[in-house]
This record gives sequence, structure tokens and C-alpha cells, in this order.
Amino acid sequence: MYKAGDVRVEDVPDPVIKQPTDAIVRITRSCICGSDLWPYQSMPATDGGRRMGHEFIGVVEDTGADVTTLNRGDLVVAPFVWADSTCDFCAEGLHTSCRHGGGWGAPGLDAGQGEAVRVPQAQGTLVKLPVAEDSALMPSLLTLSDVFCTGHHGVVTARVRPGHSVTVVGDGAVGLCAVLAAKRLGAERIVLMGRHTDRTDLGRDFGASDVVAERGEEGVEKVRELTRGDGTHAVVECVGTEQSLATAFGVVRDGGIVSRLGVSQYTQVPMGFDTMMRNITLTGGAAPARAYIEELMPDILDGTIEPGRVFDHTIGLDEVPDGYRAMADRKSLKVLIQP
Amino acid sequence: MYKAGDVRVEDVPDPVIKQPTDAIVRITRSCICGSDLWPYQSMPATDGGRRMGHEFIGVVEDTGADVTTLNRGDLVVAPFVWADSTCDFCAEGLHTSCRHGGGWGAPGLDAGQGEAVRVPQAQGTLVKLPVAEDSALMPSLLTLSDVFCTGHHGVVTARVRPGHSVTVVGDGAVGLCAVLAAKRLGAERIVLMGRHTDRTDLGRDFGASDVVAERGEEGVEKVRELTRGDGTHAVVECVGTEQSLATAFGVVRDGGIVSRLGVSQYTQVPMGFDTMMRNITLTGGAAPARAYIEELMPDILDGTIEPGRVFDHTIGLDEVPDGYRAMADRKSLKVLIQP
Repeated sequence: MYKAGDVRVEDVPDPVIKQPTDAIVRITRSCICGSDLWPYQSMPATDGGRRMGHEFIGVVEDTGADVTTLNRGDLVVAPFVWADSTCDFCAEGLHTSCRHGGGWGAPGLDAGQGEAVRVPQAQGTLVKLPVAEDSALMPSLLTLSDVFCTGHHGVVTARVRPGHSVTVVGDGAVGLCAVLAAKRLGAERIVLMGRHTDRTDLGRDFGASDVVAERGEEGVEKVRELTRGDGTHAVVECVGTEQSLATAFGVVRDGGIVSRLGVSQYTQVPMGFDTMMRNITLTGGAAPARAYIEELMPDILDGTIEPGRVFDHTIGLDEVPDGYRAMADRKSLKVLIQP
Repeated sequence: MYKAGDVRVEDVPDPVIKQPTDAIVRITRSCICGSDLWPYQSMPATDGGRRMGHEFIGVVEDTGADVTTLNRGDLVVAPFVWADSTCDFCAEGLHTSCRHGGGWGAPGLDAGQGEAVRVPQAQGTLVKLPVAEDSALMPSLLTLSDVFCTGHHGVVTARVRPGHSVTVVGDGAVGLCAVLAAKRLGAERIVLMGRHTDRTDLGRDFGASDVVAERGEEGVEKVRELTRGDGTHAVVECVGTEQSLATAFGVVRDGGIVSRLGVSQYTQVPMGFDTMMRNITLTGGAAPARAYIEELMPDILDGTIEPGRVFDHTIGLDEVPDGYRAMADRKSLKVLIQP
């Protein structure tokens, strides 16, 4: 990406091992993230451009000397940040704060929307997939890179338990995955706030008990009507704007938890006296996907859940610029890339 | 209180039972709260004035027909909001959001800085004390009304566990009680941020392992130096200003929890992209003291903890205006009233 709206597919040198902890992975599946749309809308022009993509599955082609648990030919999924999985933060399940980790596409690093990638801290980062490269489960397994783990993170940090009520603000892929994750953890009532009926229909399939299409104050009123005026125990905020955050605080029950997943486009959060008296908690953040992959994978492998249904378009690498446009124009919910 | 700086001691009609759930309590101990200082600094002039005080111990003098578990002569402590203790919020331990509760001194209601008080929802609100009216434990038992339960709430909502590190921002009575509560729950390292040495000395007695007198950026740096640059797992914010909140986010470790207890003088909280990437949680709020009284009382009765040491002055009712002044001028940490 060179600037807002300007995504180009270019040839770059093949990645090579630079550190003994590296692996080279040939990418077999990748995708475009809702969070990629923020720079697609607003990124200033840059000279060298920025490599994009942080969700991928691929085949290990080479490994550094220190990588002992991965072999050439292994099919692996990568979480959206790389991490050593051994430091104290990783041990606590907070791989996003790994002392030796980082993000894809940072200067000098490859990213997922391409043919191959050098994976730093490969042993701590990559998780083997016990299926064939062309398995029909690929779309759902790919969501373990980010979007389903992110939805799960929202639900976990909001401490959703059986019998709880949950509002999910936003009907993008993260929001729909949050619905699925809430259902998986036993939420009784799941209110999905969104106004794209094709998306909210999928949300109902994923477990939403109610859909509220109204936004702002009107939407808050609707959710309160559904919940005896109280609001819901948990709210998972999956948009990232001031308005969606205000909605979240409007629909949360006293003593409840708002978990935020939408990349914050705000710098200040409206949590003054009212939310203090009501003992509202704000939590969530960048999901440590790596911490959740092993836990969530079995439910995908046995078909219990199918988060891959959030992908509604599949494209090749050459069509990636079109994929961005389709997602930005809300013509596609989430685009899968098959290089 | 008639307006900022204007506290008067006046004769009012004796309280009488109005509802079958009421009790009349003759007050034997009361006090002034740090939160009373906010209106003392800024309250606009009012015609009728506002009754003050929300922390008291007293003797039951009369009960309504529905009050079956309290008897004339019982010595009781009142939490700083009254509550039915039977609704769903109370059952969850959130008495501050009781469906039939409220605050002392609201229109038509008595308050604690006086000789007697009508207690609504008496059975759900009052907790019997198994000691004599003149027990030496009175100061510590009085802290169960608010200040020690509030410190405990901060530590509980910040999920402090044995081995955790905690920063307490503010060396007022709530801050010192948060130190004591953190120590009680096994915190390993407790950093107290405050610059009044008489107070921070008491904080050390209560369990603070480190005292940081610096404020703002400089204070943040000091705490980070003490913690390998990481900050502490938990932060209990006991002031309520924009600056103290910014300090709290500055000293919290990635994945950590800021719990706020200081009555918010801000309307917006600086929790943008950085705190999101770091998975910082903001929690806390008005403490449901009623939920904690039975749990904390035994440690006071057996002398394990002595939170009443936060009281450094005892006055009679006539001296209450002087008591406000002494606390506002930081000449007194917390004033106990003996009517």
C-alpha cells in the first residue's frame, strides 16, 4: 500500500532466513482484514510503500538453525503478531506484548498478502495444522490468524459466561465472530447491532438472538427495551469509532463489561461520573491470537463451528486491489486470498 | 452544606419511621469523606442546603413493621449507600446499583453527619456489630462504611493476587486503605504515590514497599524504574483527576488493570490506540461496601488490620465545619465525628 486507496501487487525478492529463529513460509491462504481498511482510507503517501496482510496459512519451506519443532512441508497458521511464546508476557497469554515479538509488514519484514514470508520467532509463532493444504476447512482455520480469535478475545475479556446477555456492536467479520464466540461460551441472549441484513442473517446463524438495525440513541433504546431497561452484561465493541463506543456504554448493564476490538479511531473514551457510579469496566484490545489457537482449533476441525463463513469472496493475488475496494465499498464482508 | 465552603450545624426535626422497611438509628460515630471535599470546593449555593455524611455507626432506636432482623439497641454500621440486599444487583454484590436503593442526604433523606438518621431499607442496609458502643475498634469498624471497603473494592476489581505488583495513586485515606487491602490480599510489591510524608509513612505501615513522591511524567518514570520498565500489574487510582488517571495509565503494565476509586472530576478518559494495543483494562467505581462488610469485619475484630488509623482527628458535631476546613487544607487526613 502506497497511500490511501493505492494498493499495488509487486514483485519483491524472495525471503531468506536471516536469524536462526526464522522460517520461510510459502503462503497458501491469506486475507484482507477490516483493520486494513483504516490505512486504505487514510494512509499518507509513502515512498517505499508498506507491505500488507497479517493473516495467513502456508507451508514451511525452510527453517533457521534454532527452529526444532517445525519441518519443511508442515502446514501452519500464523497469528497476526509474531512472538517468542517463551517470555513472561507470552506465558501469561499476552503474546501481543511479547518482549521479542512484533507485527507483520513492519520495516524490513514481510507480510501476509503475498506469495511467501519470512517468519521471525517461527517456533513461537506458527501453529501446525493437522489437515491437508487443500482441506475444505481452510477458510475457518484461516480465521484463527485473527478474526475468530479476536472475537473470542472480546468475549473472554468481557467474561461472558453461560446465561449472560451480550451485545455485539458492529456486523463486520469481527462482530460476527464475536457472536459465534459468545454462543460457543454459552451466552443466553446475544444482541447483534448492525444494519446489513446479509451480515446480520449470518449473525443469526452464528447465534444472535436479536438484531438491532438502529444506531446511536435509537439503537441504545432498542437494546434497553429488549433487556428490561437494563442493558446487557457484556458488550463487545467491534467498530472502533466514538459513536460505536458511546453505543457500547449506552447498552451495558450496571456492573457490566465493555470489551473493545475495533481499532480505536478515538483518543478519548467517555467514561466519566456516570460509568463510574455504574461500575462499568472497559477492557479488550489487540487479541493475543496465538494464545487461543490450540483451544479453538478442535471445534473447527470437528465442524462444531464454522467461522470461515465470514469469507464471501475468494480472489487471487493479482486481484488484491479489487479486494480492498470491495471491502471498503461494503460489497464484500471479508475477502480470502488464494495466491 | 449550603454552598462551597459553607457547612452549618443546624437543628432539624427528629427522624421518624415513614416506611415499614425503615429504622431510626442514633449515630454514635460518623466522619467526613474525601469525596465530601469536592462539593466543599465547588457546590453552587442552594436554598435549603444539603445534608452531608454517608459513613456512620449507631444504635437502632426504632424499626418499621417489616424490619425483623434488627432490634432496638443493636449497634450497627451503615454502608455509604442504602440497599435492599435482595434484588438481582445486590445478589451479584453490586449494592450501589440496587433497584430500591439510594444515597444518604438525597432530597427527603437524612445523612450521617448528625445525631440521628432514618435508614430506608434498614434490614438490607445495616450490619450488626458484635462489640460495645465504646469499643476501641470503633474507628476501624467505621471504615467499613466506606473508606476501607472502597480501597478493598479497588484491589478486588483490579484482580490483585498474591505475587502481583500494585501502584496506588494518591495518599489520601482511600489510597492508604487500598494499600492495606492490597497487602491483605497478598500483593508482593506495593508502590504508593504520594508526597505527604506523614501519610506515606502510614502507608508504609500498611504495607507499601515503595513510596514515589514525584508526580506526572517524573512519577511515572520512577515507578517504571522500580519495575524493570514494565509498570505494575494493577493500579488503584484514588484521586479522581485527569492527571492522576494519566499517571495510572503510565504506570500500568501491559495487560494490566487500572481500577478507579477517586470520584471522577473528568468526563473523558485517555484510552486510545496505545492502551488498546497494550490490552489495558479500566474498572472500579463506586464501591458496593455492603457486599464486603461481613468479609472484612473479622480481620478488624481480631486486630489483623487496623484501617481506623486513617483517622487523625476526632471532633464533636459542633466542630464539623472546622473538620471540613482541616481536611480541605490537608491538615487532617480524615476526621472522625463523635456526636
